Parts: sequence; structure tokens; C-alpha cells
Amino acid sequence: MDASPHDAAAPRRRGRPSRTQTEAAPATRDRILDAAREEFSERGYEKTSVRGIAKAAGVDSALVHHYFGTKEQVFAAAIEVAFAPALAAPAAVDGPIDGVGERLTRFMFGIWENPTTRSPLLAILRSAFNNEAAATVFRRLLVAQLLRRIAQQLDLPDAELRAELAAAQLVGVAMLRYVIKLEPLASADVERIIERVAPVVQGHLTGS
Amino acid sequence: MDASPHDAAAPRRRGRPSRTQTEAAPATRDRILDAAREEFSERGYEKTSVRGIAKAAGVDSALVHHYFGTKEQVFAAAIEVAFAPALAAPAAVDGPIDGVGERLTRFMFGIWENPTTRSPLLAILRSAFNNEAAATVFRRLLVAQLLRRIAQQLDLPDAELRAELAAAQLVGVAMLRYVIKLEPLASADVERIIERVAPVVQGHLTGS
Repeated sequence: MDASPHDAAAPRRRGRPSRTQTEAAPATRDRILDAAREEFSERGYEKTSVRGIAKAAGVDSALVHHYFGTKEQVFAAAIEVAFAPALAAPAAVDGPIDGVGERLTRFMFGIWENPTTRSPLLAILRSAFNNEAAATVFRRLLVAQLLRRIAQQLDLPDAELRAELAAAQLVGVAMLRYVIKLEPLASADVERIIERVAPVVQGHLTGS
Repeated sequence: MDASPHDAAAPRRRGRPSRTQTEAAPATRDRILDAAREEFSERGYEKTSVRGIAKAAGVDSALVHHYFGTKEQVFAAAIEVAFAPALAAPAAVDGPIDGVGERLTRFMFGIWENPTTRSPLLAILRSAFNNEAAATVFRRLLVAQLLRRIAQQLDLPDAELRAELAAAQLVGVAMLRYVIKLEPLASADVERIIERVAPVVQGHLTGS
């Protein structure tokens, strides 16, 4: 335990100045979330423990429980942070209907091409792939925060299935390009990929 | 260690009659492979050990090394078994060019809709997603055994990128339908999905 928030005199990570517990609360919460994302990302859902997260954040386990609850709830909170950049995706559906495929595709690659926003998303995808509880949390968030909203914006028959098939194309490219790193896909210019993927997303979302 | 192949009198798993080591060799090799697939599938690549595989197969670790070599080599062998049903995919490219999307899509869903052939493939995908060494083995096999062959059959400019984008759509649907289990995709009739995915695969493979 490097620093307990109950012990303002203890050394803190990242050279933050020591404060009283009340003042430090938001910073401590963020530090726990950062630690959680890293732990889930490095160890996967199953091998990560609340205790390990607390240790990495330099706080007591009780404080992790206090801010977030169970491990599943810490995971859900970490997912929401990782998902935050993607939450604007439904807005990309707004505008002329025949440009929706390109807008959405461009928006997603904007997130994925930037390692800062890509890494947390891939970490979640990995966890969701390997653990039933993590998959449930991921599914709930993906559906509620993204796919259902996109489907509502579309307002077409089968809109949910359409949104999921479009997501399948996008997620599939992300997996093969950034995780499995298939060549030539992994090194291809992103504009070349957008050019080929955008019409597919358009077709799934609005085609006959 | 339940049964060592060096000890023909020891009880064997699955009620197989005891034989001399020479006679038992192919069965032992298969039993090790079965155990390896189960271990990799349940524990993931990192947590699986040659010792654990040997224990599950009821043999000595030395025998696993004798038949397969390192853990990475056992993994490669297990992948090849799981991949075997998919190896006929390039043959689906044969025939009239305007039906290639449907033939390939139908072929892949034929494998995925059957739990016996689906489970080993998903187990591999999980491992490849979580470990760099496993991803490398998977990538090598996927490229050499499937994508490059499909690309060669196509004989078009950018054939490799085309094959990878088609694979991205298929793999993405498999992930969201069978692993994340998004609804309505997970419960949708497979024919309805093929109807929407086949034209995309066709477009990637042969479109302008």
C-alpha cells in the first residue's frame, strides 16, 4: 500500500500534492478507475481482484468497495470510461441518410486509430470475450448506449438487426487490424479501409 | 497422473482397453490433443501448461513434449484440429464468381451453427485475442491455410485485402452472435443473416 487516502501524509503516486481526504476524493476515484482499467486490461477479468486494483491504486480495498461496490461494478465503471469516446456515435447517424455509413465508419476509426482511445476499448473487448459476467456487462452497455440509440435514429424495420450487422463489420475489422494484425489490413491506409467499409455500413443500416 | 503410457497396466481414461505403447500411440496423441483443446479453451493460452495438458490426458509431460514439442507447438496442433473443418473454405470460392459470397458465407455458417465445430474455433479465437504468441500462431494459420488461398482463387487486384475485409464481416458476426450474444442477432434465423451478409462478402471479394 503506497498511500492510503486516510493518511494524507503518506507519499502519493504521480507527485500529486497531499490534500485532506475530502479534497482528494475525486482524484482518488479516478486513480482507482485508472488502476482498474490497467488491471482488467493486463490480467483479464477473471484474474483481476478488487484487492489487486486497490494495491495498484495505492488505496485500501475498502475504499474501492466504497466508491464502486463489487468487482463487476468496478468493471462496469471502467467500461463506461473506456466507452465514453464512443458515446457520440449515435450523433453521427444524424444528418443526410445517404452519408450515415461514412460518418459512422469515420467516427469509429477516429477512435480506433488513436492508441489512447483504442487501448481501453480493446482491453474491454478482450475481457468480454473471456468471461461470461464481463460479456454481460459489455453487451448491456453496447446495446443500451450505442446500438439501441442508433437503431432509434434509423427508424427503419429491423433497425436493431441492421445496427448489429453494421457493428459486426466494424468490430470485425478492428479485431483483424488491431488485435490479430493481419497483413495487408493492419498496415493499410485508414482511408482505403474507410472507402471499402463505409458502403457496407451504409448498406446494412439503410439498404433494402 | 492417472495413467502413464509407459505403464500399460495402469487404469486408462474413457474405459479404453490397455494396450502396448506402440499400439496405443495414435490414441494417446489424440487424447493429448483433446486435452490440450479443452485446457486452452477453459483456461486460455497463458494459464495453460504442458503439465496441465499432460495431467488432463493422463500421461506424462515428457510424452506431450515428445509428440508436440513446446506449449506453442501443442497450441498450433490444437488449432489445426479446430481449423480442419474450415480448410475446405477455399473450395467454396470455386464456381460461378457471382455466387462466391453466398457460397463462402453459407460454408462458414455451416461450421458455426454446429456446436461441435463452433466451440473449438471460438476457443482458439479467445486465446488468440488474449495472448501475443497465440495471436501469432492463429494469424499464421489463418493467412496460410485460408485467406491466401482464397485470395489466390480470386486472382483480382487487392485480393488479400479483399479476403481480409470479407473475413472481418464474417468473424464480426460470429463474435456478436455466438460470443457476445447480442439480440436480435443471436436468435435471428441463420437464413436471414446469410441473406444480409452474403452480398457484403460478395462485394468485398469481387466488387469494384
